[in-house]
Amino acid sequence: MTITTINQHKVFGGNLTQCNHQSNTVNCTMRFSVFMPSSASKENPVPVLYWLSGLTCTDENFMQKAGALRVAEQLGIAIVAPDTSPRGTDVPDDSNQAYDFGLGAGFYVNASQAPWQQHYQMYDYIRYELPQLITQHFPVSAQRAISGHSMGGHGALVLALRNRDFYSSVSAFSPICHPVNCPWGEKAFSHYLGDNKDDWQQYDASILISKTGRQLPMLVHQGGGDEFLEQQLQPQALLDAAKRKHYPLEFNMMDGYDHSYYFISSFIEQHLQFHAQHFKR
Amino acid sequence: MTITTINQHKVFGGNLTQCNHQSNTVNCTMRFSVFMPSSASKENPVPVLYWLSGLTCTDENFMQKAGALRVAEQLGIAIVAPDTSPRGTDVPDDSNQAYDFGLGAGFYVNASQAPWQQHYQMYDYIRYELPQLITQHFPVSAQRAISGHSMGGHGALVLALRNRDFYSSVSAFSPICHPVNCPWGEKAFSHYLGDNKDDWQQYDASILISKTGRQLPMLVHQGGGDEFLEQQLQPQALLDAAKRKHYPLEFNMMDGYDHSYYFISSFIEQHLQFHAQHFKR
Repeated sequence: MTITTINQHKVFGGNLTQCNHQSNTVNCTMRFSVFMPSSASKENPVPVLYWLSGLTCTDENFMQKAGALRVAEQLGIAIVAPDTSPRGTDVPDDSNQAYDFGLGAGFYVNASQAPWQQHYQMYDYIRYELPQLITQHFPVSAQRAISGHSMGGHGALVLALRNRDFYSSVSAFSPICHPVNCPWGEKAFSHYLGDNKDDWQQYDASILISKTGRQLPMLVHQGGGDEFLEQQLQPQALLDAAKRKHYPLEFNMMDGYDHSYYFISSFIEQHLQFHAQHFKR
Repeated sequence: MTITTINQHKVFGGNLTQCNHQSNTVNCTMRFSVFMPSSASKENPVPVLYWLSGLTCTDENFMQKAGALRVAEQLGIAIVAPDTSPRGTDVPDDSNQAYDFGLGAGFYVNASQAPWQQHYQMYDYIRYELPQLITQHFPVSAQRAISGHSMGGHGALVLALRNRDFYSSVSAFSPICHPVNCPWGEKAFSHYLGDNKDDWQQYDASILISKTGRQLPMLVHQGGGDEFLEQQLQPQALLDAAKRKHYPLEFNMMDGYDHSYYFISSFIEQHLQFHAQHFKR
């Protein structure tokens, strides 16, 4: 597996590299960004946080806007931000180019339905191909965590709850907590996965959290002034399910914060500290 | 003078507000963004840093990408980021819509030439109208500093050197230090100010620093890997002029950093600390 460097920036003493590669999983050229702290080397491989972005984002938004790189440099953590969907002229998109389905909206599932299934295999891309690629090309250790925002918060929770030993911890900002039961999720899942709602459950954090398994550490921040809170995000479903299962979810409702990167930037340091603490165990 | 709030975000406990207003100076609707730390109130007016952005930017880039708001909240400093030019359908632009002249490229001068002079009065806008507007509508004290990047670094140095008692300190990232003698400056000044180069000198920091007056504290960071360093930015001209005048310029050449906001974010904390220190005197 080869990668091509598109560009590099020195930042906080570390290095941010934007790359692309030909993905066998999603069958197109995929772009991702990697921040490596200055302490990382072959002799000192560092733990890595995978960050999954929300609707309309690319690999760039988090690196530019979250203010995470200062803290990642201090803590000696690598950050990998993939794109949010396959891209390219032969990748099908929503027929109306809507923002909430198709390009920029892969929802971190493996599509089973035509014409989506040829490219929209984002679950397997994040779980298998991307970590293999990162391990091969960058000095990272076997310790890894996962986090994300909105659609990417959903993705992070789902990936972690289905792979509880692969990740040491998970966190999310404003995640779509119960996608089988909200407009964004229903639109995406009915197209990618078909009309049988039984097939949707493997991608719903509020359902997966009830499954038996290691209770990996989980931290969630949600803005109280988020315009998508009640209809799309539904954190209460996750909280209720966690309570029934006695799952120790650290949930923080933050008064007045909205759905933007200004919210993420305000609390990203806490999330990185949380993951660093669990890397050390 | 009235302002209209376009939107607001809670961030780091403070508030970021994007506004517009009808400007009498540049004769169009102008947009700006203001961050107010949570400590600010009528009873506790706070000092304010004016930030001038570079070519192609609006009022948004710095607020989204610089990572400054965390530190501004901690230090209790307001930040005001204006747009980089007049805008609107009746504001003339470069005939080729080039990025380095016209819209997004006001260069912080008062144009004297047709058709630019009706709107391109950015020097007076930054120096007079904007501070009056901010003082009227936000709880800021009479203490103010100014900073900026690239074209905005040029603007900050020029504004400060011509108004040495109005600002308590000045700083810049990668400023255009000697615009009368570089391609960006020559293009902009010849259009905005005409062909008489004597009229250009009032907007050149390397010339203004030699004038008699208070030596207000000045901090500059420049990336050593900046693609525009030698042809456009020419920090050596500023350093030479400062040396001749025994002006105590704090200049930092940072190996490997480029012209991007990743560079700004890496050192913005030092700049805010620098201004805070001089607010206190």
